[in-house]
Amino acid sequence: MSPANTNQALKTTLCFSIDDKIGGLESCLAAIKGMDISLTRIESRPSLAKEWDYDFFVDFEANDAVQVTRVVEGLRKHTKDVRVIGSDSMGDNVPWFPRKLTDLDTFAAKVMEMGEELSSDHPGANDPVYRARRAEITRIAKSHRSGEPVPEIEYTDEENETWGKVYRGLTAMYPTHACREHLYVLPLLEQNCGYNDKKIPQIEQISRFLKDCTGFTIRPVMGLLSSRDFLNSFAFRIFYSTQYIRHSSKPFYTPEPDVCHELLGHVPLFADPDFADFSQEIGLASLGASDEDISRLATIFWFTVEFGLCRQDGDVKAFGAGLLSSFGELEYALSDKPELRPFEPLKTAVQKYPITEFQPVYFVAESFKDAQEKVRDFAANMNRPFSVRYNALTQSVEVLDSKDKVLRFAKSIRDDMKTLTTVLETLS
Amino acid sequence: MSPANTNQALKTTLCFSIDDKIGGLESCLAAIKGMDISLTRIESRPSLAKEWDYDFFVDFEANDAVQVTRVVEGLRKHTKDVRVIGSDSMGDNVPWFPRKLTDLDTFAAKVMEMGEELSSDHPGANDPVYRARRAEITRIAKSHRSGEPVPEIEYTDEENETWGKVYRGLTAMYPTHACREHLYVLPLLEQNCGYNDKKIPQIEQISRFLKDCTGFTIRPVMGLLSSRDFLNSFAFRIFYSTQYIRHSSKPFYTPEPDVCHELLGHVPLFADPDFADFSQEIGLASLGASDEDISRLATIFWFTVEFGLCRQDGDVKAFGAGLLSSFGELEYALSDKPELRPFEPLKTAVQKYPITEFQPVYFVAESFKDAQEKVRDFAANMNRPFSVRYNALTQSVEVLDSKDKVLRFAKSIRDDMKTLTTVLETLS
Amino acid sequence: MSPANTNQALKTTLCFSIDDKIGGLESCLAAIKGMDISLTRIESRPSLAKEWDYDFFVDFEANDAVQVTRVVEGLRKHTKDVRVIGSDSMGDNVPWFPRKLTDLDTFAAKVMEMGEELSSDHPGANDPVYRARRAEITRIAKSHRSGEPVPEIEYTDEENETWGKVYRGLTAMYPTHACREHLYVLPLLEQNCGYNDKKIPQIEQISRFLKDCTGFTIRPVMGLLSSRDFLNSFAFRIFYSTQYIRHSSKPFYTPEPDVCHELLGHVPLFADPDFADFSQEIGLASLGASDEDISRLATIFWFTVEFGLCRQDGDVKAFGAGLLSSFGELEYALSDKPELRPFEPLKTAVQKYPITEFQPVYFVAESFKDAQEKVRDFAANMNRPFSVRYNALTQSVEVLDSKDKVLRFAKSIRDDMKTLTTVLETLS
Amino acid sequence: MSPANTNQALKTTLCFSIDDKIGGLESCLAAIKGMDISLTRIESRPSLAKEWDYDFFVDFEANDAVQVTRVVEGLRKHTKDVRVIGSDSMGDNVPWFPRKLTDLDTFAAKVMEMGEELSSDHPGANDPVYRARRAEITRIAKSHRSGEPVPEIEYTDEENETWGKVYRGLTAMYPTHACREHLYVLPLLEQNCGYNDKKIPQIEQISRFLKDCTGFTIRPVMGLLSSRDFLNSFAFRIFYSTQYIRHSSKPFYTPEPDVCHELLGHVPLFADPDFADFSQEIGLASLGASDEDISRLATIFWFTVEFGLCRQDGDVKAFGAGLLSSFGELEYALSDKPELRPFEPLKTAVQKYPITEFQPVYFVAESFKDAQEKVRDFAANMNRPFSVRYNALTQSVEVLDSKDKVLRFAKSIRDDMKTLTTVLETLS
Repeated sequence: MSPANTNQALKTTLCFSIDDKIGGLESCLAAIKGMDISLTRIESRPSLAKEWDYDFFVDFEANDAVQVTRVVEGLRKHTKDVRVIGSDSMGDNVPWFPRKLTDLDTFAAKVMEMGEELSSDHPGANDPVYRARRAEITRIAKSHRSGEPVPEIEYTDEENETWGKVYRGLTAMYPTHACREHLYVLPLLEQNCGYNDKKIPQIEQISRFLKDCTGFTIRPVMGLLSSRDFLNSFAFRIFYSTQYIRHSSKPFYTPEPDVCHELLGHVPLFADPDFADFSQEIGLASLGASDEDISRLATIFWFTVEFGLCRQDGDVKAFGAGLLSSFGELEYALSDKPELRPFEPLKTAVQKYPITEFQPVYFVAESFKDAQEKVRDFAANMNRPFSVRYNALTQSVEVLDSKDKVLRFAKSIRDDMKTLTTVLETLS
Repeated sequence: MSPANTNQALKTTLCFSIDDKIGGLESCLAAIKGMDISLTRIESRPSLAKEWDYDFFVDFEANDAVQVTRVVEGLRKHTKDVRVIGSDSMGDNVPWFPRKLTDLDTFAAKVMEMGEELSSDHPGANDPVYRARRAEITRIAKSHRSGEPVPEIEYTDEENETWGKVYRGLTAMYPTHACREHLYVLPLLEQNCGYNDKKIPQIEQISRFLKDCTGFTIRPVMGLLSSRDFLNSFAFRIFYSTQYIRHSSKPFYTPEPDVCHELLGHVPLFADPDFADFSQEIGLASLGASDEDISRLATIFWFTVEFGLCRQDGDVKAFGAGLLSSFGELEYALSDKPELRPFEPLKTAVQKYPITEFQPVYFVAESFKDAQEKVRDFAANMNRPFSVRYNALTQSVEVLDSKDKVLRFAKSIRDDMKTLTTVLETLS
Repeated sequence: MSPANTNQALKTTLCFSIDDKIGGLESCLAAIKGMDISLTRIESRPSLAKEWDYDFFVDFEANDAVQVTRVVEGLRKHTKDVRVIGSDSMGDNVPWFPRKLTDLDTFAAKVMEMGEELSSDHPGANDPVYRARRAEITRIAKSHRSGEPVPEIEYTDEENETWGKVYRGLTAMYPTHACREHLYVLPLLEQNCGYNDKKIPQIEQISRFLKDCTGFTIRPVMGLLSSRDFLNSFAFRIFYSTQYIRHSSKPFYTPEPDVCHELLGHVPLFADPDFADFSQEIGLASLGASDEDISRLATIFWFTVEFGLCRQDGDVKAFGAGLLSSFGELEYALSDKPELRPFEPLKTAVQKYPITEFQPVYFVAESFKDAQEKVRDFAANMNRPFSVRYNALTQSVEVLDSKDKVLRFAKSIRDDMKTLTTVLETLS
Repeated sequence: MSPANTNQALKTTLCFSIDDKIGGLESCLAAIKGMDISLTRIESRPSLAKEWDYDFFVDFEANDAVQVTRVVEGLRKHTKDVRVIGSDSMGDNVPWFPRKLTDLDTFAAKVMEMGEELSSDHPGANDPVYRARRAEITRIAKSHRSGEPVPEIEYTDEENETWGKVYRGLTAMYPTHACREHLYVLPLLEQNCGYNDKKIPQIEQISRFLKDCTGFTIRPVMGLLSSRDFLNSFAFRIFYSTQYIRHSSKPFYTPEPDVCHELLGHVPLFADPDFADFSQEIGLASLGASDEDISRLATIFWFTVEFGLCRQDGDVKAFGAGLLSSFGELEYALSDKPELRPFEPLKTAVQKYPITEFQPVYFVAESFKDAQEKVRDFAANMNRPFSVRYNALTQSVEVLDSKDKVLRFAKSIRDDMKTLTTVLETLS
């Protein structure tokens, strides 16, 4: 996607299986090592498809499509079910996507725009002190790795004052404008995560709170990720958040996401189980999706997680973070000026939208659960040769591309049903 | 349980809910703080029972049962569904148990016997060098916290040689004595985790491998945990492992668990999904169980995870770690000398057993899945006023003690069924 | 409901359980017989709630509410869970409803208006030959009993000609006006049930066809049933159909249901699984519902099964039998003249409607499956102290008013899940 | 199977589907009629596989295998998924089996031995009055059709006296010898179906009672059916029962099933839901099974439904009808003389057994539920190219031989889960 990738080596993951036979693992490994490729990772694991088979995952840097084809053909002699992930410039291969949580570590440095390069319309564009501070904070994000606590930022008085102005202004509007779920969670954030108008809360504390609520966690990010990387992370219930704050000269405006947008707009919703499911559903749909489908999913994300409205007890309320962190647009969105349409992924996904002004059209969801099901149906009709599901135990994504894998899923539901009947039995 | 606890403050957790009303959270918090108790943690969370309610979890150190009763009565004016967890010396209260993964951090220092105090029959009891090395390794375990990588141990040549003797000896016996699952995983450990007869593998690498397979992870431990703490950890798919090795003078004997027992006996099985489910089922059954039930579950654990046999293709094979790490008993267990009985939790749980000699009786499981279901039925009939289930997303345990909580579980299965039908639909 | 009932004896059913103990059944029976009541049926059955208990169902004709109360109080000494069904004039008791298929046999003679008494606006009101023929056909319906084949009617040439005119006219409109499901089934009715413009098809043949498709069967009826009886029958997938035809003088008009309305409007839809589910859902909701809820459900029925529209591939199409059997209103309903609103049970249920002219308002369903779920949610919020489900094996309705009964249902789903995984496993 | 079949026409059913297109049904029908075959039935139905397709079922009498092949090849040009059922003498085709309840009507006259021809060891072999009476009763069975009530038999005093002797003798043994389910149901049969030592109860009354309990119904039969026909009927919860009684000279002996065996041995168990499920599971497994598998299933039936033992509260009890209707063998089976083995279908299915003397070996089931699951697993491993499930609504068997059909099943479970959560929600 980003131009920088085109001349580089092609990051490629090969997934395949081998039969269980004595010495099978070693001879397969030897065959792989015998190929003239630049290997970055080899993993063998118990097969998720057929019992007693083994699954292999091999990452390498391909020189070109020809080499990938040659490697695949070589492997087909020893293995079965070879799937190529990552050579997105070639044929009908599946674009690369993270299979497990730790695969996300590669995203941290892959921001589309560097933290230092502010757009010319940014209120801090000409303030060297602000730019240096912003760069300092993004450096912390860059070195963060999965599993580590998010570093605490010692915010300045000026930063905390900017936060305070935003905090007081928005919380005054929420009772009449925010959706019920947002209003329900905010007091919990005040009681457990230090939300107040005095100091900017710390992401680590919030992340632990969200983990308890829905399993979502927050990771620091330097700046904007590509749509693909950003959406992919939701498949793992990961939210990438900035930690810097807008320029103090314009507390009610910012052209880019900042800590006010993240902590007041996004965070409360991620504590809601149905919204968390909905967000993850978009993430799961984005794994290995074509560039066109990524673009459609990003538009769906835009009109829901960022600018979504919903109907509650007969009224329209805001749940999109872009609205819940903007005084002006929050007011406007619930006025009679914009056009409201029902959320229907097929239509929403192709709606054009402006980035620098208020939206002329908003989409209204019936409920997060309903929206989730609609996104799942949308994904089922995308041009992707498999379904996926998230295995929270292994924190990895299972590609459901064969009857055996679907059967495993069905068995897990069967086992849950057994547990449910036992639990019902013991319920007094 | 352990004598050290009796004179100390009573660690107590109170769980209760409050209605959703404006200011409800703050007034409840104020009421709690107004009580004259030594608070160690207060958490408020979205309710897992009724929508829009809030759940509170309050930890405090009670002076005595009278104080607990006074606090509970005070709370009942403001709240509902108060449950007392932890005052195990009192009435019919539920013994304390960890609710979420991070609660396990308190276990690390709670070993029953210190690493330095070797029993007199330990081959290293009179070897000061061995004892110092052992103490050094257990100190590392003591400082470990959840989320951090397990520290690497630089093993000495002597230690690696002891490992090598054990490794070569046992792997020669496995093809004829070990269960199919063990044989299936061992080559994966060789290929991915450095298992071989040259060097002791590192726990961090193994833990990451198990995480991918079944979500199990390994934590270092100083020595023996209490039965309750040890079993409780399995509810979270955590296995506490020692890192030190037996004395080099007796490579084929150790009176306590060591790294050979853990890595060759236990680890391969935790990579098997059904065995992992079975182990977790025992762990879930142990949460908040009475002392008598803990004792029964520990006996079940003994006769399965430690000394279990199973029937495979008409033959009896070993899957217990105590057998798979002992030359002599592995041979003996599959001979015609011991008595074999079918695994039936009600009977197995009350079977007496010797600790210092070969078992006169072994129990034979039909399959890990079958054993898991039997343990679940056993747990359902224990004297515990609730069921539990593990939420892998939030890495926490949900207490299913009301219709609303069971309903949430049922809804999650319903949603999985929706996903399954969508997946089936897209399957080619 | 109908004035005729008020002075009569009160048909009352008592449901209760007794513990399993030696001689329990006989002593309970003796106690019932010892009461001074006019018993019409006593059944004892294996309990659907607690294992080894017995369920009793006792029907009697009560003189008044006082007697019912006395009997119930007498029974409470011997039994448990006494539920009174049928004394709808009293307190908060549950109106009487059929529990099993054979209970419907009592409906046949309970028509609200006799076949002979045509309304003055009926085109055949002054035609004694037509009235005699109509009376002859309704007499056949009156003597029909469940399990017997529906008697064949030898239609006259005049009757077949009237049918032919209607048939040719409507089938010409269907391709552009009828919903997809109707268009899909009609050729099957032509091929299997003798649908054509020459002769009126026979109900028995159609009923057998529907049985194969969805389990629906047709019973002949003399005339209009009460709303309660008519809706109740759908819980058992029974459709009460007239067999006489409109007056030959006005082939395109009838003020009452006739065989054209039933066979062209209703029948094709009952062959569709989702529509069958939807219809049954309304029927299940009506069992034991209050008079107010019956009225609401009848309105929902009116705006769906009789006059429903649905959205298909962007177009609005008709699925209501009242539309699909009326040239004029079918044309009008899909024009831009009437008002269309989305089908929402809460709103649809209270919409006023005219009976003798075209509807000013129609409701549009998203799909039959969606409509079914909405009716189920509507039923869940009705003022009825239980849920019901249909057991197709026993052709009876199970009242889900206790944890034990719900548990049985959950276990049946668990068993289905076991079957599903076995089936998936064997699928090639 | 029976020699009489070999020279006759081959009863053949063809199942296939066609796409939904205008005129598709007619042209397919024309193609079938154009073939030179002796058609006995043509049915077209909504497809159970793909939405909007049509399924065809064509029955014809083939002259030979060549003709069948020619017809199938002719059909393949117009249709898809052609499956041949019934030409059991040819290649790998599937033996004929009933698809719906009414298909069973062909069984009535297909008894293996005529009612008149008693074996020479039959106590009534030389009693012309007994033989005439027996013939009279079997004639009634012959004319019975599905849906009709079972004709009442006016038993003679002598017949009722024979019944009374058997009844008093066996009921005296049951409390110590019969399984709990049998003991539980017998009082219900006394209270509802006229079971007592005075008169032989009537099958129609019993059949209605069983219908309420588990959906089983009883049909009269002339004599022994073939194993295939007899087992097939259980797939539809139909039990074929004789109505005549043993010879009065030997009330405690009969070499063939009689009304004592059916009503005291079999009937009580069919009122138990788990036993009913188990019996149906054998029936479902038998549909379209090979002759070898029919023989194995008949042996399983023999060692369970006829001669089965089970473990209850530590004791072994009888549930097989052959035991529960035989004084001598009931005593013997629970003594220490015979050998008892655990019920394992793979082993039980190949156990040899004598027909004319007491069994040397019995098999002990853990529970009916457990036995059912074991039979289901056994069926899954039979050599049959499909699974089946019973649709109680349509009283027909669905052949699950494609993903689409399995998907329909999965969706029905999903819908049940939705119902379950709604029901749980409304449960107080």
